[in-house]
Amino acid sequence: MNWEAFLAPYQQAVDELKVKLRGMRSQYEYESSHSPIEFVTGRVKPISSILEKARRKQMPMNTIEKEMQDIAGLRVVCQFVDDIYAVGSMLKNRNDFTVVEEKDYISDKKESGYRSYHIIIEYPVETIHGEKLLLAEIQIRTLAMNFWATNEHSLNYKYSGQIPVKIQSRLKRAAEAAFRLDEEMSIIRNDIQEAQQIFRKKQEKNKHGRDNGF
Amino acid sequence: MNWEAFLAPYQQAVDELKVKLRGMRSQYEYESSHSPIEFVTGRVKPISSILEKARRKQMPMNTIEKEMQDIAGLRVVCQFVDDIYAVGSMLKNRNDFTVVEEKDYISDKKESGYRSYHIIIEYPVETIHGEKLLLAEIQIRTLAMNFWATNEHSLNYKYSGQIPVKIQSRLKRAAEAAFRLDEEMSIIRNDIQEAQQIFRKKQEKNKHGRDNGF
Amino acid sequence: MNWEAFLAPYQQAVDELKVKLRGMRSQYEYESSHSPIEFVTGRVKPISSILEKARRKQMPMNTIEKEMQDIAGLRVVCQFVDDIYAVGSMLKNRNDFTVVEEKDYISDKKESGYRSYHIIIEYPVETIHGEKLLLAEIQIRTLAMNFWATNEHSLNYKYSGQIPVKIQSRLKRAAEAAFRLDEEMSIIRNDIQEAQQIFRKKQEKNKHGRDNGF
Amino acid sequence: MNWEAFLAPYQQAVDELKVKLRGMRSQYEYESSHSPIEFVTGRVKPISSILEKARRKQMPMNTIEKEMQDIAGLRVVCQFVDDIYAVGSMLKNRNDFTVVEEKDYISDKKESGYRSYHIIIEYPVETIHGEKLLLAEIQIRTLAMNFWATNEHSLNYKYSGQIPVKIQSRLKRAAEAAFRLDEEMSIIRNDIQEAQQIFRKKQEKNKHGRDNGF
Repeated sequence: MNWEAFLAPYQQAVDELKVKLRGMRSQYEYESSHSPIEFVTGRVKPISSILEKARRKQMPMNTIEKEMQDIAGLRVVCQFVDDIYAVGSMLKNRNDFTVVEEKDYISDKKESGYRSYHIIIEYPVETIHGEKLLLAEIQIRTLAMNFWATNEHSLNYKYSGQIPVKIQSRLKRAAEAAFRLDEEMSIIRNDIQEAQQIFRKKQEKNKHGRDNGF
Repeated sequence: MNWEAFLAPYQQAVDELKVKLRGMRSQYEYESSHSPIEFVTGRVKPISSILEKARRKQMPMNTIEKEMQDIAGLRVVCQFVDDIYAVGSMLKNRNDFTVVEEKDYISDKKESGYRSYHIIIEYPVETIHGEKLLLAEIQIRTLAMNFWATNEHSLNYKYSGQIPVKIQSRLKRAAEAAFRLDEEMSIIRNDIQEAQQIFRKKQEKNKHGRDNGF
Repeated sequence: MNWEAFLAPYQQAVDELKVKLRGMRSQYEYESSHSPIEFVTGRVKPISSILEKARRKQMPMNTIEKEMQDIAGLRVVCQFVDDIYAVGSMLKNRNDFTVVEEKDYISDKKESGYRSYHIIIEYPVETIHGEKLLLAEIQIRTLAMNFWATNEHSLNYKYSGQIPVKIQSRLKRAAEAAFRLDEEMSIIRNDIQEAQQIFRKKQEKNKHGRDNGF
Repeated sequence: MNWEAFLAPYQQAVDELKVKLRGMRSQYEYESSHSPIEFVTGRVKPISSILEKARRKQMPMNTIEKEMQDIAGLRVVCQFVDDIYAVGSMLKNRNDFTVVEEKDYISDKKESGYRSYHIIIEYPVETIHGEKLLLAEIQIRTLAMNFWATNEHSLNYKYSGQIPVKIQSRLKRAAEAAFRLDEEMSIIRNDIQEAQQIFRKKQEKNKHGRDNGF
């Protein structure tokens, strides 16, 4: 298998999607409104991980193009849980790719404690041999979900997927702590939005008459 | 006029098109064939240059979106003149934008000595408020054309567009020298391609039997 | 004040330090050992924030070069608390800058709940007018500390530094949750390191004879 | 030989030097004076080229660190021949590296027609194992020299260093055309500088009294 030729359009797709998703963030910033996007990363799955996953899921190599959805992977990290759904609905409104599947591991978290929102898209990439449609996975998470998942991933890597039960239970407690963090933040978010509405009304009043020192 | 909001989708288009055109170059490289693309640059036209051009061309500001074609500008620099047309025809085959105009200042060079191939495209950019179609100019040139044009541009800037006649005539002589360079290189290009064909045939022969030391 | 000229060497310092600190991360990766560095970001303090801080701290403008330590700011984010001190001691061993101050807000956290390790360095930047020594702040934090601090920063910005008491107390509870997360992870880290030592010993044994299925 | 470990500090040096040399260009720009630097590129020599050169020059592998000067390579491209010497003298004034050798292939061009100014520096790179002094080559050229050298390089690559005599003589004629271009441009440069001085004097006069419509 010529991996370099096989992976090149995936790399191209990741490069293009990083620019596109980061562009959304810049647009929010220059319109000086709250950006639901904190940062964006992307990567092409390493060959060793593709092989390992194909073996584990018993996928013949000639089907991975159709069946392995995360060879091109993007990650959008948000501040608040609600931002995740805002990003998700924006992605579904775009014309430059098609959403083919959604996996909500937030309302339905994984056994391990993993929480994240996954969107699978079909993305048209122009190559020097013509257009090619390929699958890409966009993971949308809060900072806390990402923090936890990063640590779980490194433990999984170190234990080759067989994390000892004792550490698994610690990881679950950590996942609950991360979940509580997100909940605290979500409650504060409402306070922020209420406060902002009060401020805005105050400012409008001022324009029509009283100067109350604001 | 809110310039930041007006120019943001142009910046986004330039960022996306740089990644797309540079991607073509990488694809040629990993397929280890000659890339017609040497390098790609891009820029959004500075506000002062937009204002100056609108004034000079007597364009009302509410028409620049439709009439000023180079607010988003990309430049593709090639080694050989023939590569320019190869790049041009690839761009016309892509599905992610539409070519709306072509200007061949190579077969029909400008009075100043300027040579370049310009393609005007209509590019769909996704913004947080929906899709926006905008114009972008892709300039395709050889290294020699680019070398000359860079120097002419800096002289034009320094003389505010009024280059003294004496220097104008020197620039024209330089343009002719650059043109001769491109011609010399084009002739050598044919030699290279012939040589490569001979080599390839030799290699194929070797596979079927004789080892003639190659 | 010519802000562009004043800030240019700081931008240069931030650009150089980002490359230098990210380089440390790559080095760990190709030596395939655990990198204490998760990611590195950097920024020059916006002019409005410089003015606001100078006013708040009653710094005359001609002293900010000597007294405002965070005009050039770098952030190194780590997975584990212990990694912070490892990064800190590496920074102190480098010859390309001098550490002039350390602030340990981890063993001595701020009233607000803020935890982070700050190192102030004196960095020599080469300009076209000669070498210039300037101050830069490097903040070293875990992912959890960074998560919390990012949220506190955005709340501070929204409330102009006057976060309501009720939200302040929620933030403190969030800070405690983040702290517990780091503690859980630190304990697991020890497990990982012990496990890795056991694995390594096993592997060495195998080389000398028995195949125990590992 | 562990090439990845061997080449890592060279990659780090190239990354740092690109940021440093590009920074010089930005500084000229925001001081709105003519920048002698048009653009900067950099690369680590590919392993195959290192091996090929070591074989050709009969360098034992354990001496390449001391004797192969261009493993880390930077290229600074200028508009005018005089800019090359301006860049060269700035590089000699910096404190962050030491110039150990200069090769002036401009006043003393190579038999092939190659013209360029090479500076060999000793650059201290901080690694996670401490400081490492290594050699790097900085090539300084005009756009025309670079245009010619790029083409010669690709021909050399295609003919494995054995360019046919007929093409060699065409290349020499192209080199002479490139040389004449640089000469034309150098003469115009003087005109520009004279013109700029006249303009500046005019402007100063205006400040002290007459408004002559400039």
